[in-house]
Amino acid sequence: MSSIQFELVKKIGTLTESSSGWSKQLNMVSWNGRAPKYDLRDWAPDGEKMGKGITLSLDDLKALKTLLNQLEELD
Amino acid sequence: MSSIQFELVKKIGTLTESSSGWSKQLNMVSWNGRAPKYDLRDWAPDGEKMGKGITLSLDDLKALKTLLNQLEELD
Repeated sequence: MSSIQFELVKKIGTLTESSSGWSKQLNMVSWNGRAPKYDLRDWAPDGEKMGKGITLSLDDLKALKTLLNQLEELD
Repeated sequence: MSSIQFELVKKIGTLTESSSGWSKQLNMVSWNGRAPKYDLRDWAPDGEKMGKGITLSLDDLKALKTLLNQLEELD
């Protein structure tokens, strides 16, 4: 098996938590020793197991912030 | 091979586009005929191929909006 190294560089915050204890979190994560990226992902309660997610750049987050602030159903 | 049915219910917006033409988009997507969910994902230029991504609930998006509006590096 291959292994992926990751380091949780900065916890930004938790979006929501499911009844199973898994939570969707926005963090800064370094993958395989590379420069940290923003990362939106499901995490197990102990923070050791990760689910599906995506990495995001600073530009992605800026654009996402603008989109969310324009979305009427979030008001 | 198994197949996953998806329907792009509503385009909300594009975050960023890479030099290869793939773009990170926030959309509402219905998976296998179920109720549509918010979906943050990479899409190929033709919109036919999809990359990694995650589905998000309305509560996820509300919490994400609050987090992003508090994040100083996005100002």
